Amino acid sequence: MDAIAPGLLPEGLADRLPPQAEASARLVREVLDSVARHGYRRVMPALAEFEETLVTRLQSAKAEDLLRAVDPVSQRTLAIRPDMTAQIGRIAATRMAAAPRPLRLCYGGPVMKLRADQLRPERERMQVGAEIIGSDSVPAAVEIVNVAIEALQRAGVQGITIDFTLPDLVTTLAEGPMPVPPHEIERLRARLDAKDAGSLAEMGVSAAPYQALIEATGPFHPAMTRLEAIDAGCANGALASRIAALRAIAKPIGWDITLTLDPTERHGFEYQSWFGFSIFAEGFIGEIGRGGAYQVARADGTSEAAMGFSLYPDPLIDAGFGSESGKRLFLPLGHDAGRAAELRAEGWVTIAALSRADDAGALGCEAMLDGKEITPLG
Amino acid sequence: MDAIAPGLLPEGLADRLPPQAEASARLVREVLDSVARHGYRRVMPALAEFEETLVTRLQSAKAEDLLRAVDPVSQRTLAIRPDMTAQIGRIAATRMAAAPRPLRLCYGGPVMKLRADQLRPERERMQVGAEIIGSDSVPAAVEIVNVAIEALQRAGVQGITIDFTLPDLVTTLAEGPMPVPPHEIERLRARLDAKDAGSLAEMGVSAAPYQALIEATGPFHPAMTRLEAIDAGCANGALASRIAALRAIAKPIGWDITLTLDPTERHGFEYQSWFGFSIFAEGFIGEIGRGGAYQVARADGTSEAAMGFSLYPDPLIDAGFGSESGKRLFLPLGHDAGRAAELRAEGWVTIAALSRADDAGALGCEAMLDGKEITPLG
Repeated sequence: MDAIAPGLLPEGLADRLPPQAEASARLVREVLDSVARHGYRRVMPALAEFEETLVTRLQSAKAEDLLRAVDPVSQRTLAIRPDMTAQIGRIAATRMAAAPRPLRLCYGGPVMKLRADQLRPERERMQVGAEIIGSDSVPAAVEIVNVAIEALQRAGVQGITIDFTLPDLVTTLAEGPMPVPPHEIERLRARLDAKDAGSLAEMGVSAAPYQALIEATGPFHPAMTRLEAIDAGCANGALASRIAALRAIAKPIGWDITLTLDPTERHGFEYQSWFGFSIFAEGFIGEIGRGGAYQVARADGTSEAAMGFSLYPDPLIDAGFGSESGKRLFLPLGHDAGRAAELRAEGWVTIAALSRADDAGALGCEAMLDGKEITPLG
Repeated sequence: MDAIAPGLLPEGLADRLPPQAEASARLVREVLDSVARHGYRRVMPALAEFEETLVTRLQSAKAEDLLRAVDPVSQRTLAIRPDMTAQIGRIAATRMAAAPRPLRLCYGGPVMKLRADQLRPERERMQVGAEIIGSDSVPAAVEIVNVAIEALQRAGVQGITIDFTLPDLVTTLAEGPMPVPPHEIERLRARLDAKDAGSLAEMGVSAAPYQALIEATGPFHPAMTRLEAIDAGCANGALASRIAALRAIAKPIGWDITLTLDPTERHGFEYQSWFGFSIFAEGFIGEIGRGGAYQVARADGTSEAAMGFSLYPDPLIDAGFGSESGKRLFLPLGHDAGRAAELRAEGWVTIAALSRADDAGALGCEAMLDGKEITPLG
């Protein structure tokens, strides 16, 4: 094969340069600081682990999508983590199995797949998030959604939309008050995912009540009103507790957030149970985060409830979000080192000359130190 | 093969749990904040790249030590980075080739090898560092050493020892004033690395002057005095500029630091040029960081001088360095959310009850919110 150009990176992998790297670091830091104030403690899972222990806990990635290699020590296959939520589950179920519940953990770092999916060409992403292990109750959902919003807003993200979903709703209704033959349920789900009312009608009488569910989608209040009408009608009250839960989760969310409902959507996260949500930000295509209720497998074969969210802030950073640079002060050769230290403590970024050739302007300095004084540069 | 226990990680890979994960994050953050104040701008290199572009720039890792996989997109081999300094060189030589020099960059993140080396069993390490591209002058060395010390001290590391080395000294002397036949130089270097004065004597007359160099090792001032004696004697003044450089680098270093000299040591970093240093901390076996002068290959085949340092803080963290935990306040069900937000702003970490069963004491809380008041627990 031809030699690779020295600066070329594989498709879907990229270096982040200033100021985007600084913006990314700042955003991750703000999110982690925010969740830490709510008692989420930091864990740093290993970058790689045995493929076997990873794949059994992965919710939405397949083994062949992972970057894998044979471990020369154990002769088993290692894989780079494609997701950190699965690792948090492993930690909660093993080394932290005896830690008191609810166990609140947070994390942030790179994740990687060998194959990108169609929606996202990048193979490496930054993931930052928080999980409650030991509860998927309504108060847990209220906390997770509101902690996610607070973290994003503290990091300066504006124009946030939260889309609530009820991932297991269709299955619950199909097995209960709005019966559908078991072998038809997956087909029904697929048509609802596609919001295809026409093809739903073709499925016949059992699918007909579900057409109204497609209509209960969109801005929160009108969609909830339609959902309540379904509950009072063919759902026969089976939705009452979910409706109350959604209202409780929405209550503390401010009207600076756009809230929508999509009761039949799963966003490809089939493992979620009663509640899910996707996070969008104005000006960005695709979600910047997601969360919801799920189950964590324990070592003894049972499972425990969990609720969490993950953010994937790269699209925000790529769009130039959050870049800011400090005031840069040039320090000539032989400058007063004590004064320079004082000025750094006051917030200046100092750039020390290494030779007479160093160009303060080219190095991005807006001022220089002259004795003890700061002199602006043209 | 047998199934793997669900909590087992491959040898040399580990999850970091609270409070070590928090301590690690805090240390990396402090170091990066410190160097940013001196104008080092953050870059985040890709976690993986083409093996070919990575290996040509690696200084001390071999291809077979890397975690590699075939890229399904390009059909070329990808490798996870074992080191970030090589990536900074690539970025400086390609995408940032036109950026003004000296170019100051900093970085922090996980690095990984498939095979550990004998000294260090861990295969994943945290690396954080700073590089000046475009200068390996004495002022650049003064800045790099002192910025490294300041960063470690701000992060709270005490009992720091810096060991100065002169990596290309022996070769320079052997080709000049203290001549050794070219085919003997590597043997000479190996015996000096081993500080083996006896076997040096066996090499015969040409190696004899080097015995004094082994003695010029240890606490900075006596070792420098011996080096000056060698310079005035058989080195015939060839060491004068290096001696002046070492004195200049040492000058701003405070006496809270232990300074040593080891003029024949390379610490396995053969790629360094005139100056190198290793960083040790009291109570830790092995270095916690290293740095020095080197060359970065440009895309046009030439190279440019560089100077930098990298820290590998994991041993500090494993020893419990830097753990601290905030005051944790329990928020009972139905608590005053506004008051809780005020208390978080004042520095409290709040733990909200999700059910009546949540145990404030077990969850590590030292107080609870009672109305608007804080009530101590236990």
